[in-house]
Amino acid sequence: SAQRKKVMKKDSFSQKIKRNKISISEQGMSGEKCFEWLIHPFDKEKFMREMWEKKPLLIRRNNPEYYSGVFSAAELDSILRKENVQFTKNLDVTTYTPEGGRDTLNPVGRAHGAVVWDFFLNGCSIRLLNPQTFSHGVWKLLTTLQEYFHSCVGANVYLTPGGFQGFAPHWDDIEAFVLQLEGQKSWKVYAPRNENEKLPLHSSKNFKQDEIGEPILEAVLQPGDLLYFPRGFIHQASTPEKAKHSLHITVSCAQRNTWGDLLKKMLEGAVEMAMEEDASLRESLPVNYFTSAGIVWSETDTPSRKAFLDRVASAMRTVMQHAPVDSAVDQVAKGFVHDSLPPVLSEDDLACSVYGTGEKWSAAKQKVVRRVELDPDTNIRLLRVSAIRLVMEEGAVRLYHSVDNPRIYHGDDIQFFEMSPEEAPALESLIHSFPEFVKVEDLPLPTISEKVGFDAVRMCTVGEGTDTQ
Amino acid sequence: SAQRKKVMKKDSFSQKIKRNKISISEQGMSGEKCFEWLIHPFDKEKFMREMWEKKPLLIRRNNPEYYSGVFSAAELDSILRKENVQFTKNLDVTTYTPEGGRDTLNPVGRAHGAVVWDFFLNGCSIRLLNPQTFSHGVWKLLTTLQEYFHSCVGANVYLTPGGFQGFAPHWDDIEAFVLQLEGQKSWKVYAPRNENEKLPLHSSKNFKQDEIGEPILEAVLQPGDLLYFPRGFIHQASTPEKAKHSLHITVSCAQRNTWGDLLKKMLEGAVEMAMEEDASLRESLPVNYFTSAGIVWSETDTPSRKAFLDRVASAMRTVMQHAPVDSAVDQVAKGFVHDSLPPVLSEDDLACSVYGTGEKWSAAKQKVVRRVELDPDTNIRLLRVSAIRLVMEEGAVRLYHSVDNPRIYHGDDIQFFEMSPEEAPALESLIHSFPEFVKVEDLPLPTISEKVGFDAVRMCTVGEGTDTQ
Amino acid sequence: SAQRKKVMKKDSFSQKIKRNKISISEQGMSGEKCFEWLIHPFDKEKFMREMWEKKPLLIRRNNPEYYSGVFSAAELDSILRKENVQFTKNLDVTTYTPEGGRDTLNPVGRAHGAVVWDFFLNGCSIRLLNPQTFSHGVWKLLTTLQEYFHSCVGANVYLTPGGFQGFAPHWDDIEAFVLQLEGQKSWKVYAPRNENEKLPLHSSKNFKQDEIGEPILEAVLQPGDLLYFPRGFIHQASTPEKAKHSLHITVSCAQRNTWGDLLKKMLEGAVEMAMEEDASLRESLPVNYFTSAGIVWSETDTPSRKAFLDRVASAMRTVMQHAPVDSAVDQVAKGFVHDSLPPVLSEDDLACSVYGTGEKWSAAKQKVVRRVELDPDTNIRLLRVSAIRLVMEEGAVRLYHSVDNPRIYHGDDIQFFEMSPEEAPALESLIHSFPEFVKVEDLPLPTISEKVGFDAVRMCTVGEGTDTQ
Amino acid sequence: SAQRKKVMKKDSFSQKIKRNKISISEQGMSGEKCFEWLIHPFDKEKFMREMWEKKPLLIRRNNPEYYSGVFSAAELDSILRKENVQFTKNLDVTTYTPEGGRDTLNPVGRAHGAVVWDFFLNGCSIRLLNPQTFSHGVWKLLTTLQEYFHSCVGANVYLTPGGFQGFAPHWDDIEAFVLQLEGQKSWKVYAPRNENEKLPLHSSKNFKQDEIGEPILEAVLQPGDLLYFPRGFIHQASTPEKAKHSLHITVSCAQRNTWGDLLKKMLEGAVEMAMEEDASLRESLPVNYFTSAGIVWSETDTPSRKAFLDRVASAMRTVMQHAPVDSAVDQVAKGFVHDSLPPVLSEDDLACSVYGTGEKWSAAKQKVVRRVELDPDTNIRLLRVSAIRLVMEEGAVRLYHSVDNPRIYHGDDIQFFEMSPEEAPALESLIHSFPEFVKVEDLPLPTISEKVGFDAVRMCTVGEGTDTQ
Repeated sequence: SAQRKKVMKKDSFSQKIKRNKISISEQGMSGEKCFEWLIHPFDKEKFMREMWEKKPLLIRRNNPEYYSGVFSAAELDSILRKENVQFTKNLDVTTYTPEGGRDTLNPVGRAHGAVVWDFFLNGCSIRLLNPQTFSHGVWKLLTTLQEYFHSCVGANVYLTPGGFQGFAPHWDDIEAFVLQLEGQKSWKVYAPRNENEKLPLHSSKNFKQDEIGEPILEAVLQPGDLLYFPRGFIHQASTPEKAKHSLHITVSCAQRNTWGDLLKKMLEGAVEMAMEEDASLRESLPVNYFTSAGIVWSETDTPSRKAFLDRVASAMRTVMQHAPVDSAVDQVAKGFVHDSLPPVLSEDDLACSVYGTGEKWSAAKQKVVRRVELDPDTNIRLLRVSAIRLVMEEGAVRLYHSVDNPRIYHGDDIQFFEMSPEEAPALESLIHSFPEFVKVEDLPLPTISEKVGFDAVRMCTVGEGTDTQ
Repeated sequence: SAQRKKVMKKDSFSQKIKRNKISISEQGMSGEKCFEWLIHPFDKEKFMREMWEKKPLLIRRNNPEYYSGVFSAAELDSILRKENVQFTKNLDVTTYTPEGGRDTLNPVGRAHGAVVWDFFLNGCSIRLLNPQTFSHGVWKLLTTLQEYFHSCVGANVYLTPGGFQGFAPHWDDIEAFVLQLEGQKSWKVYAPRNENEKLPLHSSKNFKQDEIGEPILEAVLQPGDLLYFPRGFIHQASTPEKAKHSLHITVSCAQRNTWGDLLKKMLEGAVEMAMEEDASLRESLPVNYFTSAGIVWSETDTPSRKAFLDRVASAMRTVMQHAPVDSAVDQVAKGFVHDSLPPVLSEDDLACSVYGTGEKWSAAKQKVVRRVELDPDTNIRLLRVSAIRLVMEEGAVRLYHSVDNPRIYHGDDIQFFEMSPEEAPALESLIHSFPEFVKVEDLPLPTISEKVGFDAVRMCTVGEGTDTQ
Repeated sequence: SAQRKKVMKKDSFSQKIKRNKISISEQGMSGEKCFEWLIHPFDKEKFMREMWEKKPLLIRRNNPEYYSGVFSAAELDSILRKENVQFTKNLDVTTYTPEGGRDTLNPVGRAHGAVVWDFFLNGCSIRLLNPQTFSHGVWKLLTTLQEYFHSCVGANVYLTPGGFQGFAPHWDDIEAFVLQLEGQKSWKVYAPRNENEKLPLHSSKNFKQDEIGEPILEAVLQPGDLLYFPRGFIHQASTPEKAKHSLHITVSCAQRNTWGDLLKKMLEGAVEMAMEEDASLRESLPVNYFTSAGIVWSETDTPSRKAFLDRVASAMRTVMQHAPVDSAVDQVAKGFVHDSLPPVLSEDDLACSVYGTGEKWSAAKQKVVRRVELDPDTNIRLLRVSAIRLVMEEGAVRLYHSVDNPRIYHGDDIQFFEMSPEEAPALESLIHSFPEFVKVEDLPLPTISEKVGFDAVRMCTVGEGTDTQ
Repeated sequence: SAQRKKVMKKDSFSQKIKRNKISISEQGMSGEKCFEWLIHPFDKEKFMREMWEKKPLLIRRNNPEYYSGVFSAAELDSILRKENVQFTKNLDVTTYTPEGGRDTLNPVGRAHGAVVWDFFLNGCSIRLLNPQTFSHGVWKLLTTLQEYFHSCVGANVYLTPGGFQGFAPHWDDIEAFVLQLEGQKSWKVYAPRNENEKLPLHSSKNFKQDEIGEPILEAVLQPGDLLYFPRGFIHQASTPEKAKHSLHITVSCAQRNTWGDLLKKMLEGAVEMAMEEDASLRESLPVNYFTSAGIVWSETDTPSRKAFLDRVASAMRTVMQHAPVDSAVDQVAKGFVHDSLPPVLSEDDLACSVYGTGEKWSAAKQKVVRRVELDPDTNIRLLRVSAIRLVMEEGAVRLYHSVDNPRIYHGDDIQFFEMSPEEAPALESLIHSFPEFVKVEDLPLPTISEKVGFDAVRMCTVGEGTDTQ
């Protein structure tokens, strides 16, 4: 059966990874497997425990083909010719020297190939922003990793001619995985300079060479190698003189996906909710409040100040008891669903879902054919559990999803459909069962007709043992 | 001396209140005295402890002259003739009957006296909004009470012909003090119908008679009487048939001045501040966060959920430790300074402050005369401590004040002047010393020239023993 | 009768002007008389024909009292003490030297007298903006002149210490009448430098002394003198060393009140109207239009271009035939009504209009007294014909008026009341009859009850032979 | 040579049209030829003279294959499966009955094929909006016709099951060409009901059957037939009971492309320009203007009114002399360039332009190859003269173009590049020479290096006799 085949495939996948043979184009790779492949042969648990957000990691693979299928300079040339790539919006032309500093040389308008290559031949670096918009390989890599991280995964591609450097030393606001695709690049990574600059919320300015201290890691990356470093780690890289060129892709994640961001979402509505439910928060401040607290009174130690601060603390505890953790998490997850790339659907996904099944127009017969309904014994499961989020808002149950997202960030409004509260448990059972299949007749809905007419099945794939033809 | 005279005046003031002789026009009445006068002979401490925000209070005085000087129907007539009173913006014409319900009959444009009185003769009620804009007596009453409450004090005036009612039963979102000025009015007050409707944040709809239950207080107010009831208490009132008319003013306070409002201000920036200071809040959410919490997972009981909730609780405690209580209070107080009425300055205030002293143009001599500077032994004190607020913002020290506020709500931007951090202690010493005078040479400033040139003296009155002529 | 008395007053007014005795405070001076007084003894017709918008004019009067009642330095001192005059919004402190150029030294916040006089003693010039907001005399002067010009009349007051100059050479975008009130001021006026700078739409930059050529007029103004110069004429002025000070007021008018501005208003809607009425304007452009005209084709001389230009010219003629001249003039006039100062109403005006007549509250009787209605033989006339404008818009007839305008520019929305189309002729008859009285029974309205209930009478004064008491 | 071949192709094209064999996919069909093909065998000149914007035209062809390659129901099915077609934004589901009226049944979200066909089987009509976004054939048809009309050409596709009607009788605001693609449709067309409804600027409401009178044209369209009718002509259509379905595409043009629209653009700036150049327009209105004109004075016949109207007429003539016809045409044409579809570039276009020539990355050699420059004897011509517009604005020369426009209306900002005024004549010579080639050395530029470096060549194709490989 397909499920059994899938199990077998998992085994052989691990085998292949061990033999260093798996590629990004591997059919049906899951988010977790993809992350294992990305940091192979480093252990995933150990990485998250010891390296993630803590220190840089260099992985050498001696396998120039390891990233084949992700991206290439030839694909860049093809994209420039066929797609409307715009300077500044999609592509930057940059230069850097320690003396002259960093410069951006973007013309306006479309980045025609001939113009871009002319810059390159004159020593400029080319940065392709959001390559996932144009490249199927990059899209597939990022959207799969996204399933693992549950936060947005982005990328930039960098092409630099031999003997040049395109960027000044700086740190970014994202966790960075550098995949060396072609040629060589010489890297220097520096630790955060102090506690305040650890895990920064914003990218840094461009530094001068004398502001950044000594590197803690130096290496020349070869094709197939990986370099990871956390946000806040200053870095710089140049293509060695003797190299023809360097092409790498930096995969980024974990931008503004912090505990603090969750708390902000949570507290936005928390006081309003607590005020509605607890009348003590609706009592007036004492008439002497303005001489009990405030900057002018912050160093006084009066009974009225003490009473005031005690009451503030007690009110805060009340608010905390009403803090809507679950709905804040749903809001963060909904944001992720809006921001994220659409999943790459496999042939199987397409054939066994609303994209491939159901009524269609027959050109031969000049009429609509293949009218079908779900049977009670049809097996279904969600296409991707990470591509949806069930959220209660404004008194309704909404199923947000990223399946029809465009590959351009926020190119469309977030997509959702509303369900009745009675349908929510059926959806929940599909979520909790994922990736196992559920029989339609086993959905927690009151009647058979509701089960076979369940609307959320649009987000599902139809499993084995089902004939919808 | 003036100070000694002031002490004597205080005594005689209490004496007068006891003899029921004090009036609103009493020179130099403080906020606290004014509130005592308002609820006289009820005890102030007892009121705040037992009645405030809890239950209604009726005070009978048998003294029709008690409120003389506050407002009168004759003053209303004069205002309509001289001022550009606009329907809807400044004045409403209303009717109510249990059968026909409540209606507003405002024309557009200016409320000319002849038109207003025509409505009145036809049984309509007249409501003058914000009478403090037009009436010196009302302004003085409200601005003085404001000093006591430290929250905005407002008012409406209601004039109703005999045999009519102007408004449907409803509750308001403010604490209400009803001062019966002329004629009689028959009141009914009802308790909040349930816990949720106690101390409400918003005014209610108009109720039908069968929605409100039985009154807990019924009384016909006579001139000089007072009726207090908290927000959330439904009420209605009509002029008895036999009365010629009823004129009362409702003084309101405590609108959105709650512990919850303070907490909202406090939490707005609290997470941002905590994130800056504590790197643990800048760590990413765990990659499995989205199956640990959220509405779909809210009834699961997994170790990952427990760990997630523990971390949320710990992060909240971190935020609390960084919660900026004092600066939130300053923001609330700054809002009050912006919203509040300007103080009524006495002749003494005017003569001994920047309004009355300093250089002036002599018409006789056709030149500027009376050039003065502060002497080191000049005594100064703040004009009103409740009319200013010292706030740290955007890296600067700002002295916000209401002294030049217009009598129209938010008619101007908030007024302030910036000081150097070095000058702040001098201002703080004036605040802490209020209402006592401080010698200029005793101001905590480094040099004599800084002391005599101290800019914030613009908010001060110059005291006895000083000759600035 | 009052009308006869008015005629007599007119005569005596002319007499007084001839004797140079009339002052701005003269009761009931009309706009035209006020302008005659302003340029006395120069002839009004000759002024408009030969000087207005053409060349400067100096009038010497040898009468220091000529402008008494308009404004004085003592009034400025009093205003600073009593009113909330704000730096920048209401008052500027300026300096100028040919070497150092022009500078503005405004602090922020309220302009307290002591601070302003301190600047003055240090050689700064003081400019009070919009003195009409604070000064009754200035208000009366400007609002009366406005009746003559039918465009907004504004003013600034300038006070400069002896030996100083406050402003760099520049031109303004208004016609300027300089009234020397106190002290002396030495003026230089220069002709526009070329045709383009004649009657400019915008004020100039500050010029350097070597950019402006030679003055065409030089004079030291004495109290009572007048200097007029058109917009576009560069000017500069300083107080002589030996003078104690100089105080003058510059009355300005004719800002953006041009034929071009009228045409813009007229053309805004003209094409839309023409398109609705004439289908030929709704025909498509020819398919070859884009090679018939345009910058690239502007020097070609093809038949298709000629045909295209002919059709454009013909279409323009069609538009012209639909140009709404009258409604454009009404829009300009409506703008004037919104922008203009409210009229100063005399005691008679107040007593015999809605401000003084009709129902009122009697404090003695504690009830409404003096109920009146118009009688058919009551005589009425508009308070001021220049203070109203009857406009057709959005299918309604609206009477816009400035009677309740605030003295602050655009301090309120424009005031109007709507009438039915049937009432418009009655209003028109009042407009056409002004300043003569009309009997209520003679108003062109169908019934007596409509005549005595005519709402627009709010804008009227009630005339002789009427007893409304 | 290529040019000679092109000439031959033109001949054979006419031959083919005559034999009714030409199809939309014909390589290199020009705008004019495409329009000839659209109305074949009706004469183009006669059509523009007698039918265009005047009356409907039915063309029967007895050739079901005439429109092959434009669109089909099978292509619609394929689009729904592969593209993110959204209800309301891209696709409408509609019904109409004379009794029940018109209704839209759109769900929210993506229009999955199964859902759309389900509606269709239940008697609904399907309207695909902007099919050019999804269909290459429609894009090619519209963008080619656009070259002829020089105004935006749009389209909707309509699919209706047998026995149903999707829309109520109405008129549109565009010229409509109905191309019957599959099945049969029964049409009724009605003349405009009066002069005002001729060539309307806005689409009509839905009419009831008794509001529209008798049809002037009735016909059942067969595949290959054409029906044209002007805007303002009411129409309705239903699929006959016996027909399986009807599929047609309505090609629309001439929306708001009128003489009136040009005049509005022209007059917007005309007064401003005239005021700058002619001081008489900057003179003030006469002081009595407000009693010379206006609705109240519109029927007076005074000398001052006559003088006023004369001066208005004279001022209008002055404005007309300054009316910027050419720059208004350029603005209209620039709007067209922004609104229009990008041209479909042929293989030749791609190979011989910046899209196919110039530097490229060689995957084999792992470096940039094929560096070329223009030679002085290279022949160049514009890719499409209708896809560019040279405009003077803000003191610069800008070349606006639609070559990189997206197929989604206004999906991007308008694209342009700036040139120096010195380069403009070179561009003008390319425009005037189109479609002939120009030798680079013959460009009117001062030096050879400027000629070979001429930047606007990006909008050009490189002609015969040139070897850029």
